[in-house]
Amino acid sequence: MPIEIIQHIRKVIDLSDQEAEEFGSILLEKKLKAKSYLIQPGDQVSEEFYVVKGCLIAYCLDDFGNKHILQFAIEDWWISDFEAFFNDLPAKLFVEAVEDCELLGIQKSSLETLFKRIPKFERFFRIKTTNAFVALRTRILSSLQKNAKERYLEFCELYPDVEKRLPNYHIANYLGLQPESLSRIRKELM
Amino acid sequence: MPIEIIQHIRKVIDLSDQEAEEFGSILLEKKLKAKSYLIQPGDQVSEEFYVVKGCLIAYCLDDFGNKHILQFAIEDWWISDFEAFFNDLPAKLFVEAVEDCELLGIQKSSLETLFKRIPKFERFFRIKTTNAFVALRTRILSSLQKNAKERYLEFCELYPDVEKRLPNYHIANYLGLQPESLSRIRKELM
Repeated sequence: MPIEIIQHIRKVIDLSDQEAEEFGSILLEKKLKAKSYLIQPGDQVSEEFYVVKGCLIAYCLDDFGNKHILQFAIEDWWISDFEAFFNDLPAKLFVEAVEDCELLGIQKSSLETLFKRIPKFERFFRIKTTNAFVALRTRILSSLQKNAKERYLEFCELYPDVEKRLPNYHIANYLGLQPESLSRIRKELM
Repeated sequence: MPIEIIQHIRKVIDLSDQEAEEFGSILLEKKLKAKSYLIQPGDQVSEEFYVVKGCLIAYCLDDFGNKHILQFAIEDWWISDFEAFFNDLPAKLFVEAVEDCELLGIQKSSLETLFKRIPKFERFFRIKTTNAFVALRTRILSSLQKNAKERYLEFCELYPDVEKRLPNYHIANYLGLQPESLSRIRKELM
């Protein structure tokens, strides 16, 4: 079992070696090549994924075939089509590897068993979900209240490691900008 | 203590009468007249609120003074400036009563003590936060993938009770529409 995920959890809750072991036993290792899909629309989504290594994006397509990036994830983040995962619905999103990835999947049924056996994981996932919820509200507020340059600066401040990893057009898409606009903003800031 | 909030919690977790009593002891009752503010930008936000009675909206203003409704809440829902509440930041939102309201507030510090004393509340708030997170992702996806009529129909299906309570211009705002467009859609559907 990769040690990274245990360190990741121990940042939030205490975990004995035995509890860590038990948690490790429910994880499913998965490798994914760059440009391949973890999830595609219509899939049944029985897992959420912790990123050990790599970089992924989650996006939807609109009626005109335009891509809209809803989420990205690098090391130490979680990704899935969460709506499909939590509500037992068919996936609406593509989740695609931007780089070669090593992931750890947790099945929803294993998670429910884990909560019963080691209830402190309720706290871990409550705090993680709260952070994700708040980050999503912040993103919506920023899209309403901030101009393009302010949104880009906020992105760099919040996610400095992501900014170095994602190609320009993915960052632009996430920020709701044309790639040329983002290039211009970056030049202005240099 | 209003029985509603205990019934609300017992839909998600089991709660003994003693636990319910203890939970009730940390709640702070608050009444709010229609059109008055529960939270305004710059406020310190030490509480989140359960709605016993009434209807509220949470919104921000953009640089041009335009209102953008981020959330609404009626009976049995929770509302706050969650970013400010969870991250100890000054409020960015207005939270305003649309009708006369009766609320129950929980302070962040009381919540932390509660989690230590009765850990099953971690589960309750994990599930509630997960639902809120997923609903927010659904809303973002709908704004990207669905047209105005589809978004309105989805709103009516998800929140039939809210649709009857909120004035036309608030629903239009929440859906990112002009009030006239929503009126036209409603006429078409009749």
